[in-house]
Amino acid sequence: MSSTTASSRAAKRTFNFNAGPAALPLPVLERIREELLDYRGTGMSVMELSHRSAEFEAINATAEQNLRKLLAIPDDYAVIFVQGGGSMQFTMAPMNLCLPGKPVDVLHTGAWTAKALAELKKGILHNIAASTEADKFTRVPRPDELRLSADASYIHVCTNNTIEGTQYHALPSTAAPLVADMSSDIASRPINVSRFGLIFAGAQKNLGPSGVTLVIVRKDLAERADKNLPTLLQYRTHIKEKSLYHTPPTFAIYILGLVTEWIAGGGGLPGIQKRNEAKAKLLYDTIDNGNGFYHCPVDKSSRSLMNVVFRVGSSQNQTGDESVEKEFAKQATAANLIGTPGHRSVGGMRISLYNAVGLDAVEALTQFMREFQRSRG
Amino acid sequence: MSSTTASSRAAKRTFNFNAGPAALPLPVLERIREELLDYRGTGMSVMELSHRSAEFEAINATAEQNLRKLLAIPDDYAVIFVQGGGSMQFTMAPMNLCLPGKPVDVLHTGAWTAKALAELKKGILHNIAASTEADKFTRVPRPDELRLSADASYIHVCTNNTIEGTQYHALPSTAAPLVADMSSDIASRPINVSRFGLIFAGAQKNLGPSGVTLVIVRKDLAERADKNLPTLLQYRTHIKEKSLYHTPPTFAIYILGLVTEWIAGGGGLPGIQKRNEAKAKLLYDTIDNGNGFYHCPVDKSSRSLMNVVFRVGSSQNQTGDESVEKEFAKQATAANLIGTPGHRSVGGMRISLYNAVGLDAVEALTQFMREFQRSRG
Repeated sequence: MSSTTASSRAAKRTFNFNAGPAALPLPVLERIREELLDYRGTGMSVMELSHRSAEFEAINATAEQNLRKLLAIPDDYAVIFVQGGGSMQFTMAPMNLCLPGKPVDVLHTGAWTAKALAELKKGILHNIAASTEADKFTRVPRPDELRLSADASYIHVCTNNTIEGTQYHALPSTAAPLVADMSSDIASRPINVSRFGLIFAGAQKNLGPSGVTLVIVRKDLAERADKNLPTLLQYRTHIKEKSLYHTPPTFAIYILGLVTEWIAGGGGLPGIQKRNEAKAKLLYDTIDNGNGFYHCPVDKSSRSLMNVVFRVGSSQNQTGDESVEKEFAKQATAANLIGTPGHRSVGGMRISLYNAVGLDAVEALTQFMREFQRSRG
Repeated sequence: MSSTTASSRAAKRTFNFNAGPAALPLPVLERIREELLDYRGTGMSVMELSHRSAEFEAINATAEQNLRKLLAIPDDYAVIFVQGGGSMQFTMAPMNLCLPGKPVDVLHTGAWTAKALAELKKGILHNIAASTEADKFTRVPRPDELRLSADASYIHVCTNNTIEGTQYHALPSTAAPLVADMSSDIASRPINVSRFGLIFAGAQKNLGPSGVTLVIVRKDLAERADKNLPTLLQYRTHIKEKSLYHTPPTFAIYILGLVTEWIAGGGGLPGIQKRNEAKAKLLYDTIDNGNGFYHCPVDKSSRSLMNVVFRVGSSQNQTGDESVEKEFAKQATAANLIGTPGHRSVGGMRISLYNAVGLDAVEALTQFMREFQRSRG
């Protein structure tokens, strides 16, 4: 459609380092735009399709199949799309998976596991099996630090800590099922799904827009839940109805289907991992080679490939100079580099390098960083 | 943008009578398309904006303000956007609003109040204060039929019954707060919000796409809830954080803002009511003037302006002839009239006439109906 292409060329696009909602692949946005008024001859937008129509059922099934293929999800796992984000999973996971008298073991690594803990503290038996709080969450725990319960219902882990900039590069071997909050590194690298009991992830970082949450759950575990729980809060409801028990967020699922197709077209998870590693390496190298002007507080063994946090402007105490960091963000914005400030709770800078962020964006950023450093003499 | 207009003209568009997700206003879809790659100079899609950005905060505030103005919502009511649709509200409403020992009174009018009842039956004190099940839900209850509890926590009512094609044209006066499932007639006519304690509605019929649920709640009632409830399931969480406690469905809220703007531009709720009444009158007149070939089973006093249900092809027993109805749907689809079959649980035909369905669509449909009837001779 030549007119679309024309206006596409005209659109101003920034380098987007937002922590989520985040950048989407340009070809996906272009496809959405092309089909927006007439989805493949239906004469309707995807948003206007009935969720009971053959067209939407195909969209829903395609999104699931794309994920199954991409993540090599075994058949004894269900793949469902729900609402409420990771925050709802902090409630749903214990509601569905807790066994009487058997605690939830939590590996506490920052703000997101703190939120999971806050829900558990409302009356659910739990145990902090490891915590790196004493190290200000600058690393994830080592396997030898874990004090796991003998009879845990499950073990809660956050594979990538968006705010602290840490990520597990190997997961502990555990007897109890691992329940992983994978919101910020799902589909960014290959994983072995069979090592998990439950994986959940909001789509808005690596897989699509906000408003849809992916849940991958071992089917037998979903049967632990009391059938008297609210219908919508039981995994089995969504498993049985293939995410169509009630009206799903149809447009978000459609986009998730397009993004997974885009990832598959770029070599699948091995391909995206390679690109993610190259992006992160370029940025960490720039930080490390800055003679102390830039400083990443995260332990090298735990550095995240998704969210790179660093301080700017003070090589002395390594805590960063807030006025310089403010100036960094201001000049970055002026240079079309959006979303560089760190989370309001920790300060500093944070660069999110999710799947849809291109190497060109990181090249532009690192060039800016070198120039900014030079300008500060 | 001339290129957009050109491709807009080229897009095939159907007449969409889906029950939800449903038709959206064409000018809204065109605006979405125009801004899809670059939202008003940000260089990003709305989907790529951080929910903590000034741009999205403005989108969120605008959607709320548009609704406040359109529905004349008093200041002692909060307006929040949550996830999970009406189905989640069947759980959240009793969780938040039930007082110890005080039952929920339910006015039972069909499939959707049955779903609300199913959640209440899981251990919440309740009372069926009226039911029209004996009349096969072909009408809503009369005020004199209500057997309200003296001390109800609240009264659950579904203002429009999508599947049965009934709607309240006057609501009972009650001492206890009315909790209204307004999913399928929100913003289709003026209402007096101060008569309700809580109003909830999925956006996907009259206000936008699926994936966002509007909740209007009297602030003092939201304070009834136990603070130990899951954070996400407390209304007060979303009230306090202005729907930004966690990542909201940003794109759906943006579209809700555009749709409410479109309604306001067309004369607000009095304007849309007038158009909705004209559409429904044309269709009901066509049914009633069909010499029995078409038959609406709904009591005239309870006929819905939103979902018109009727049977086709059998004037004798007034139950409809399924083979003729199948043929009706088939020929309608061929004539570009989409979404005419009734809900699978009741059969027959159902025509949804939500805000974005134009009079031209109803004219095309009623002409088709006259021709179809003639062809059956």
